[in-house]
Amino acid sequence: MTKGYFITFEGIDGSGKTTQLELAEKFLKEKGYDVVTTREPGALEIGEKIRNILLNYNGVVSDKCEMFLFLADRAQHVETFIKPALESGKIVLCDRYTDSTIAYQGYARGQDIELLMKLNNIAIRGLLPDLTLLYDIPTEISQQRIGKEKDRMESSGIIFHEKVHQGYLTIQKENPARIKKIDGTKSIDEVFEETKKIILQLIQEKRGV
Amino acid sequence: MTKGYFITFEGIDGSGKTTQLELAEKFLKEKGYDVVTTREPGALEIGEKIRNILLNYNGVVSDKCEMFLFLADRAQHVETFIKPALESGKIVLCDRYTDSTIAYQGYARGQDIELLMKLNNIAIRGLLPDLTLLYDIPTEISQQRIGKEKDRMESSGIIFHEKVHQGYLTIQKENPARIKKIDGTKSIDEVFEETKKIILQLIQEKRGV
Repeated sequence: MTKGYFITFEGIDGSGKTTQLELAEKFLKEKGYDVVTTREPGALEIGEKIRNILLNYNGVVSDKCEMFLFLADRAQHVETFIKPALESGKIVLCDRYTDSTIAYQGYARGQDIELLMKLNNIAIRGLLPDLTLLYDIPTEISQQRIGKEKDRMESSGIIFHEKVHQGYLTIQKENPARIKKIDGTKSIDEVFEETKKIILQLIQEKRGV
Repeated sequence: MTKGYFITFEGIDGSGKTTQLELAEKFLKEKGYDVVTTREPGALEIGEKIRNILLNYNGVVSDKCEMFLFLADRAQHVETFIKPALESGKIVLCDRYTDSTIAYQGYARGQDIELLMKLNNIAIRGLLPDLTLLYDIPTEISQQRIGKEKDRMESSGIIFHEKVHQGYLTIQKENPARIKKIDGTKSIDEVFEETKKIILQLIQEKRGV
């Protein structure tokens, strides 16, 4: 049992999750909480190297290779960063986590979802988030927001992103207690009101236990 | 079913496996065979990047992270290099493969061997070697041969290497048809006579089928 709170931010590119994470960090720090922010892939020095391979490699990265690289990054991230932070009582806000693997590698790239879930569990050793915020926007809006500067993951095309989008919705339906869906099409302020409300609810509930 | 021959070279550091692989390459090329040599980890450009992370990282690489990085390298290596080479009829000589994972991460680092075997199978998609040559030398001789220039893997200490050594012997006993043990303490020429004999036997057997 960890003392801190572990909150992950999920959604397709352009969903606003990173902006919301930054707002949540600022808000919680102002409230006096001990907050750290992080991301997957590539939070640590070793993860940054892995992230560089994944995002900037010019050749064909096989699906299995990509999957294992993400898992390597995650295993290191959980063991050396997330877990110690939670154990010392911090609130950890993480941009992407296990649900990204299931949505991207599973639903969108068609890899075996049961297998991915098993591998995720090996990598995280049971450390699921207390709360996951899923920012939901239509793929068309995502594409407009991303614009023209795309890395390898982002340029995979609109059909791919639509599969990710649908994958996220399925995962949310299967985990309604942990994953809260937020309408990401509204203004940043409106979306943040919703974000704030859900996070404060979690903190209240956990305190109440 | 592939047309070529897939031969892997295994053993602890200093066992002579790389020297024997090079001699085998030269010998088979002179005999007119189409031979390619490769290694794990780090045969490809992407693998080289992964290898660099593993061998030269200064921080603590978690066991799970290391395991997934090796698997990422292997998945890419099999799919984009080994399999196509075998399909085009080549003899592939590979310095380390799945047995290294079981010996090092399993027997020596104490990770779950059943799990490692399952993960190996996911990475290689059933592509086991036709033949594995295991060069067996006592750990003491290995340590003398390695000398003082050690990378991160080699400096893990004599107890670690002894566990790897014993692990290899166990794996060989469990796979006597595929893995042939060769006494690596003899002279390079004597060891190569044995290497040559076993490889030619494989080629003859496969032709006979």
